[in-house]
Amino acid sequence: MNLIKKNITKVKQSATLVINEKSKQLIADGKKVYSFGFGQSPFPVPEKIVSVLKDNAHKKEYLPMQGLEELREAVSKYLFSQTGVNYSKENILITPGSKEAMLLMHVAFNGDILLPTSSWVSYEPQANIAKNKTHWIKTKRENNWFPTADELEKKIKMKIKNKNIILILNSPNNPSGSVCKNLKQLAKIAKKNKILVLSDEIYTDLTFNGSYDSISKYYPEGTLISGGLSKWCGAGGWRLGFIAVPDKLKKFLKSLKTLASESYSTVNTPLQYAAVEAYSGDYENYKNKTRKILEGVGNYAYNNLKSNKILLTPPEGAFYLMPEFLGTKFKNSNHLCEKILEDTGVALLPGSDFGFEPKKMIARLSYTDFDGENFLNSLEDNGNLTDGMVEKFAPNVVEGIKKLSNWAKKI
Amino acid sequence: MNLIKKNITKVKQSATLVINEKSKQLIADGKKVYSFGFGQSPFPVPEKIVSVLKDNAHKKEYLPMQGLEELREAVSKYLFSQTGVNYSKENILITPGSKEAMLLMHVAFNGDILLPTSSWVSYEPQANIAKNKTHWIKTKRENNWFPTADELEKKIKMKIKNKNIILILNSPNNPSGSVCKNLKQLAKIAKKNKILVLSDEIYTDLTFNGSYDSISKYYPEGTLISGGLSKWCGAGGWRLGFIAVPDKLKKFLKSLKTLASESYSTVNTPLQYAAVEAYSGDYENYKNKTRKILEGVGNYAYNNLKSNKILLTPPEGAFYLMPEFLGTKFKNSNHLCEKILEDTGVALLPGSDFGFEPKKMIARLSYTDFDGENFLNSLEDNGNLTDGMVEKFAPNVVEGIKKLSNWAKKI
Repeated sequence: MNLIKKNITKVKQSATLVINEKSKQLIADGKKVYSFGFGQSPFPVPEKIVSVLKDNAHKKEYLPMQGLEELREAVSKYLFSQTGVNYSKENILITPGSKEAMLLMHVAFNGDILLPTSSWVSYEPQANIAKNKTHWIKTKRENNWFPTADELEKKIKMKIKNKNIILILNSPNNPSGSVCKNLKQLAKIAKKNKILVLSDEIYTDLTFNGSYDSISKYYPEGTLISGGLSKWCGAGGWRLGFIAVPDKLKKFLKSLKTLASESYSTVNTPLQYAAVEAYSGDYENYKNKTRKILEGVGNYAYNNLKSNKILLTPPEGAFYLMPEFLGTKFKNSNHLCEKILEDTGVALLPGSDFGFEPKKMIARLSYTDFDGENFLNSLEDNGNLTDGMVEKFAPNVVEGIKKLSNWAKKI
Repeated sequence: MNLIKKNITKVKQSATLVINEKSKQLIADGKKVYSFGFGQSPFPVPEKIVSVLKDNAHKKEYLPMQGLEELREAVSKYLFSQTGVNYSKENILITPGSKEAMLLMHVAFNGDILLPTSSWVSYEPQANIAKNKTHWIKTKRENNWFPTADELEKKIKMKIKNKNIILILNSPNNPSGSVCKNLKQLAKIAKKNKILVLSDEIYTDLTFNGSYDSISKYYPEGTLISGGLSKWCGAGGWRLGFIAVPDKLKKFLKSLKTLASESYSTVNTPLQYAAVEAYSGDYENYKNKTRKILEGVGNYAYNNLKSNKILLTPPEGAFYLMPEFLGTKFKNSNHLCEKILEDTGVALLPGSDFGFEPKKMIARLSYTDFDGENFLNSLEDNGNLTDGMVEKFAPNVVEGIKKLSNWAKKI
């Protein structure tokens, strides 16, 4: 009798690991590697927030399982200020990263999961861990890699009538870097068909045009929101996330709370105090500047990559591009990425990890391989960002993009 | 179609919550409450460890999913120094609290779970979340609330042949405060019947006689160890735990790592650096003194409670006693605790939460309702602890015990 449950054995390890291992090997061999694989904010956590963490370092009591009341209130106000929707502090659960919040959602949820292609690497394995069936909605480049209202409705009607459904939406999107423009139409379909939406808003503060759009604005009663400090606040390794649940899902929230109490118990105490500062303090200037830098670097990469060999959608948020390589054939996108890494030192992640068919020659590129602190300090408030600055402060990105572009030209 | 999975709906909320709510209400009404319900270390985290946390507060990179290598190495050395068993750093997974480690174990494990009565509140609900069947082994006061070798073997043979089995052992025990004396014999039965053991060693550093006994010494190839900073280091709210897995379970460990990568990702970065200090620094003096205080307070409570109305086993570790009330009949131990709280202001937890039959008039008492920092600072190195000091530095415990004792006498 196998010691491990079947559905767990089947959860495949992400190809990310393969690329990371290979990158490490190349670096150990003295080769230069352009780290465009891992998606981590390059910016430091704002000093004030770090100092609040220090001030609370000695606190060691268990905080309430749902999260510090002050923090839940701060998150509630933050969401209201961004979306105009009221998720009260009673409807918010603080988690060690938004990934944990999503896993608990899957574990509690009795139904099927809808995922647009492309979607973040963890949605599908999480659904598999919880034995929720997933259905992919194919999307098109011309629709910015988001489903149209028609595509969503067809999928619902074709596949999964009479079942509970959660659609997971992530905008700006990892891996595409695109922003969803038809939230209102999607909301209408969701409402009509009584499906729920998990709006993964971990990148929404990194929308380059500065607007914070959320499907909760158009469908508050059916939208769960997840978010956290990892991206906009540069605090990936801190592990602070949340999930906000609409009023009519009170019972579901109760199950999430039970699961929280039987897993991580409560989030690290000093960190929760620091997060109060992050969500209630004024970090608009920090956000504006980091967005400006990411937009500048993203556009530089975009302009220098797009060609008759590389299809690309312009960057609109987060810190990703999703190049598709034309005129080349490898067994799958994993092999494509291995070959690119070998030939150029540029580490990318294969599109197959994000729901694309393995044969599609598509990859995710994270343009964060630069010293964010240095770049941030060099940009004046309301200052302009030039290509010259990108060349000066993000030399690895510039060099890696050039190598990748040349590689594609030789295909 | 229910929105929540059946097995999750069935996970009952701990009666702890009911008692906590009731306590809060009483406090809000201006009544004095003796907080003997919640089990939290009263001592501060050692200053040096707090200062390492501060020094690393600005670090925000994601650490490796399995945990910082330096920390895994420190935990490996710590376990070797305590048990003489080598769990290499590759065999250790760092988790946000040992509870999370145990849940992941349940989620991955394909088999049944053996729990001695009494056992910690979360083992059974965690098994239910992961749909693992649990079997209780009844234990006796005269055997210190641990199963005998015979009792263990009978349960294995009677119930669950041809299945994978994990026995969860916790010594010193929550809720009984007893130490398991027959680990060697239990190990023999486990080995013979090829069952696995999860040794929950979260309290083992708080064994009052100073010895660290672990079933891994007698059955290293089949013992998983979980532990963390919550109890011996006073850092419950910090959420830092680990699980150590024997070599022959490499595949199982791989599944745990996959689950880690799909849930919490990695533990808070500054905290992991602080934990390196906790596991590699010399905290023997701190441990000795906190053990001495807990032993002194525990014995005071024991001596002033035991009577012909209250059965008690002497405290040997952790910070719990498990009084059984004679000559009284309530509907169940939950009602017993509610009545005690109403009549005396003493908050206890019902034995039914720990696996006892609800009708058994038994409860858990945590004797940590005192200012641990103050007490610790007042105790000289190698100084003696007197009843007078307990009365001075743990007045709530002294008063609450008196009220409880008087209440029992009037039954």
